[in-house]
Amino acid sequence: MKAVVTVTPKKSVLDPQGAAVAQALAHHGLENIGKVRIGKSIEIELPAGTIDEARLHQLCRDFLSNPVIEDYTFEIVA
Amino acid sequence: MKAVVTVTPKKSVLDPQGAAVAQALAHHGLENIGKVRIGKSIEIELPAGTIDEARLHQLCRDFLSNPVIEDYTFEIVA
Repeated sequence: MKAVVTVTPKKSVLDPQGAAVAQALAHHGLENIGKVRIGKSIEIELPAGTIDEARLHQLCRDFLSNPVIEDYTFEIVA
Repeated sequence: MKAVVTVTPKKSVLDPQGAAVAQALAHHGLENIGKVRIGKSIEIELPAGTIDEARLHQLCRDFLSNPVIEDYTFEIVA
């Protein structure tokens, strides 16, 4: 099985990397671009049945994200 | 509309950040963990109809990823 965790900066937190990319995309011809936010995508390969959602939430909260400034989502792929 | 671009290191490329996270997760009790790969997740907000898939492929290839060492996927969210 594979778990894909996506960690993004919270909406209330400044994301200078995203702002830089938005500005560069605007110069590339996407004049009316909105917000860009850049986060991390973490792909974890595990033997099937090794982890359940509760444990994955715990790892995301304690270890893979900084809950003060980041949100996370994950999906478990078969 | 929102486009979510995920950029990951190619399988053949060493991912030291992923290796470090895998090792740390193993110490956190996931002894039989497999590979971990860490990439970027880029959320782009745009007015509807501003961009088509071909243009997004072009931006991903030319600008958002380094095709020598990275793969990308994207999905367009309504």
